[in-house]
Amino acid sequence: RQSLKRIVESARFNTFITILIIFNALLVGLETYPEIRQTYGNWLLVVDLIILAFFALEIIAKLIAYRTAFFKNGWNNFDFIIVVGSLILYNSPYISVLRIFRVLRVLRTVSTIPSLRRVVTALFMAIPTITSVILLMSIIFYVYAVIGTFFYADIEPEFFGDLGLSLITLFQVFTLESWASGIFRPVFSQEPWSWLYFISFIVVSTFLMINLIVGEIVNNAQK
Amino acid sequence: RQSLKRIVESARFNTFITILIIFNALLVGLETYPEIRQTYGNWLLVVDLIILAFFALEIIAKLIAYRTAFFKNGWNNFDFIIVVGSLILYNSPYISVLRIFRVLRVLRTVSTIPSLRRVVTALFMAIPTITSVILLMSIIFYVYAVIGTFFYADIEPEFFGDLGLSLITLFQVFTLESWASGIFRPVFSQEPWSWLYFISFIVVSTFLMINLIVGEIVNNAQK
Amino acid sequence: RQSLKRIVESARFNTFITILIIFNALLVGLETYPEIRQTYGNWLLVVDLIILAFFALEIIAKLIAYRTAFFKNGWNNFDFIIVVGSLILYNSPYISVLRIFRVLRVLRTVSTIPSLRRVVTALFMAIPTITSVILLMSIIFYVYAVIGTFFYADIEPEFFGDLGLSLITLFQVFTLESWASGIFRPVFSQEPWSWLYFISFIVVSTFLMINLIVGEIVNNAQK
Amino acid sequence: RQSLKRIVESARFNTFITILIIFNALLVGLETYPEIRQTYGNWLLVVDLIILAFFALEIIAKLIAYRTAFFKNGWNNFDFIIVVGSLILYNSPYISVLRIFRVLRVLRTVSTIPSLRRVVTALFMAIPTITSVILLMSIIFYVYAVIGTFFYADIEPEFFGDLGLSLITLFQVFTLESWASGIFRPVFSQEPWSWLYFISFIVVSTFLMINLIVGEIVNNAQK
Ligand code: NA
Ligand code: NA
Repeated sequence: RQSLKRIVESARFNTFITILIIFNALLVGLETYPEIRQTYGNWLLVVDLIILAFFALEIIAKLIAYRTAFFKNGWNNFDFIIVVGSLILYNSPYISVLRIFRVLRVLRTVSTIPSLRRVVTALFMAIPTITSVILLMSIIFYVYAVIGTFFYADIEPEFFGDLGLSLITLFQVFTLESWASGIFRPVFSQEPWSWLYFISFIVVSTFLMINLIVGEIVNNAQK
Repeated sequence: RQSLKRIVESARFNTFITILIIFNALLVGLETYPEIRQTYGNWLLVVDLIILAFFALEIIAKLIAYRTAFFKNGWNNFDFIIVVGSLILYNSPYISVLRIFRVLRVLRTVSTIPSLRRVVTALFMAIPTITSVILLMSIIFYVYAVIGTFFYADIEPEFFGDLGLSLITLFQVFTLESWASGIFRPVFSQEPWSWLYFISFIVVSTFLMINLIVGEIVNNAQK
Repeated sequence: RQSLKRIVESARFNTFITILIIFNALLVGLETYPEIRQTYGNWLLVVDLIILAFFALEIIAKLIAYRTAFFKNGWNNFDFIIVVGSLILYNSPYISVLRIFRVLRVLRTVSTIPSLRRVVTALFMAIPTITSVILLMSIIFYVYAVIGTFFYADIEPEFFGDLGLSLITLFQVFTLESWASGIFRPVFSQEPWSWLYFISFIVVSTFLMINLIVGEIVNNAQK
Repeated sequence: RQSLKRIVESARFNTFITILIIFNALLVGLETYPEIRQTYGNWLLVVDLIILAFFALEIIAKLIAYRTAFFKNGWNNFDFIIVVGSLILYNSPYISVLRIFRVLRVLRTVSTIPSLRRVVTALFMAIPTITSVILLMSIIFYVYAVIGTFFYADIEPEFFGDLGLSLITLFQVFTLESWASGIFRPVFSQEPWSWLYFISFIVVSTFLMINLIVGEIVNNAQK
């Protein structure tokens, strides 16, 4: 068990896994070209199986080496889900889900390159400090989505047809994409007071977003 | 009176009100689906009336407990307007206004969850420090709206037909949404100097906005 | 002369001028409505002349009170140009230029309200520290405009027809408005390498803009 | 050699080169107008040749003065490539590449004006601190491009036809340009789960971008 640990933690082992991940990344890239998929489809499948086998062996080796301590690390959990998910879905009818798993293995680069790990950890650490702003944003989105569905469902069923569509439309408005030319102007030609709905939403959500960023900068600067 | 105060300030009472608000939020969400409204419309109305009754009782209890001190808290005023407004509009022909009130009750979550209250209080505190920038922005919007209406009302009546339309159009330009493809290019094909109007507006308003944000960051960082 | 100075610097005099400016602002707003212009056109003209006369008297009083020291203040110069410009253009055929002057008088609010004056002064003070970035931005815009005109003038004469059009188009691309859907995609369907031109321009100009803002924040925070 | 060094480092020599660069900039600007190119084409060519000759002489003088130390300066390398490239491409069939070189000479202003040099150096110094974020961004772009090509290549061949097109499309989505109206909505009408793909990409990439900027501000402020 100790010798297995030494192997698993060795630089050579890590380099080998990293090369495998990059190889896997190139593989999924090649598979996007239909001509290559048609001509070398079987070969790609074999290579994919070999890579998956190595990843499975890696997980098994780490499980033996660390036992339950393995699952205390978030990155290990990520690797475990990706690999076990791929194994379960193999030869299942859910090919498109398997494909996503195969592509997500590329994200394993993050867990193997320390500088990327640090960046991602820092990003996740930023989340708790902004949860109340995210919660507030969710409430505002919900309130505006309900109002939007009530008033504009008949005018623009594509955008405000039901609560889900309204939430997606509000996200589009939040990113300022075609909010006026595509969404607001057609409503405005029928409902002269609709500018209040759209402009207030943009002002409130943008103001909240800016203050979120300002807060993050100030918090980080004072650490 | 003292015992009423104790009840009103108890954790159990607060949890009960919070559950009511979340229930109310789900209710207005369900009502956006026409099928549900048609089938269970009467039931939803009854549940809504019960929730409103509880909110009214809550306000009465707090009014008895705190008397005029009740109105010294901004959040209480917000709750009071929402509940009394709902009661007044019940059975009135202004159904759409009542609907808005019903949805706005969802915002009461903000007044019951302390962390959200803090975020909103912080947002409102940011307003006074930026009033002069907002005033300056208003003057710039007004000056450009008057000029835009004078020169482009005949070319693009939809966008610059009157002062109100011009102000809405300038807000759209300020968000950079279709400012060129939708608004500027058609004017430009007839008025070769119009680029000065649009580009100067974007540069000035964006420069002001950026400086507003920079100022806010620096102010907060130095506190 | 001393008594004139005292009058000119008195709070009452300032309030009077501020009221005149707000009155002037409402006037130009009303004039944007064709019905009002047609019915009360002559009255509006008379009121405008009276306001202009008061502004002229104000300038004369200040000129007598301060003599050449009057022109040492940037705000006084601004007021002088606006008022003298209006007087010169009166009864001239350049009605549209006169109209702009009439509207620009609204900007005099900035020179009379101290808090606005301070904001604008702060904005102008930010300019010298960013001149080298602006100069760099100008060089980048110029280089890309020349290249764009050389390669895409025939494909999209509306956007890259000559150097001026290319500069306006690059400003539109810089604001990210319809850069792909309106400008890049049609070129891309004919020139497969054009993505290099557009994406490199967006990356370089945005990177410069972000660094400009970051620099401004850091500079201000360290003061 | 010492006297040549003194000449090359003299203010007069630098001013002369700067004037030549500005002259070159005006020349490439004039050449974008077909009428001017047709009428004065030969004259412009002669002037261009003279400017290029001077630039070549400048490089030769500096090479003699500094010898191999010349190439230790990044700006010198830039000048060398631009001038030698222009010389090699002269009278070659690659006229469009030569044209780009001629325009890029305008960028030499950056290497001659010290304040611009400092800004550009500062910009390049910012790159190493953000490499891990750029690497992370690249991985995310790659993963989403592969998934996008797999699922949407048949629905929108123009946007997701192959890996390269998907990467360009994701850059467009990242800039929020027509992401919904142009790209997402048509997919969404056929694939009801596609909102997850687009909204998650926008949230993740924007979140990363904001944190990159926040990090840059905090890093610079703490220096
Ligand atoms: Na757009
Ligand atoms: Na946009």
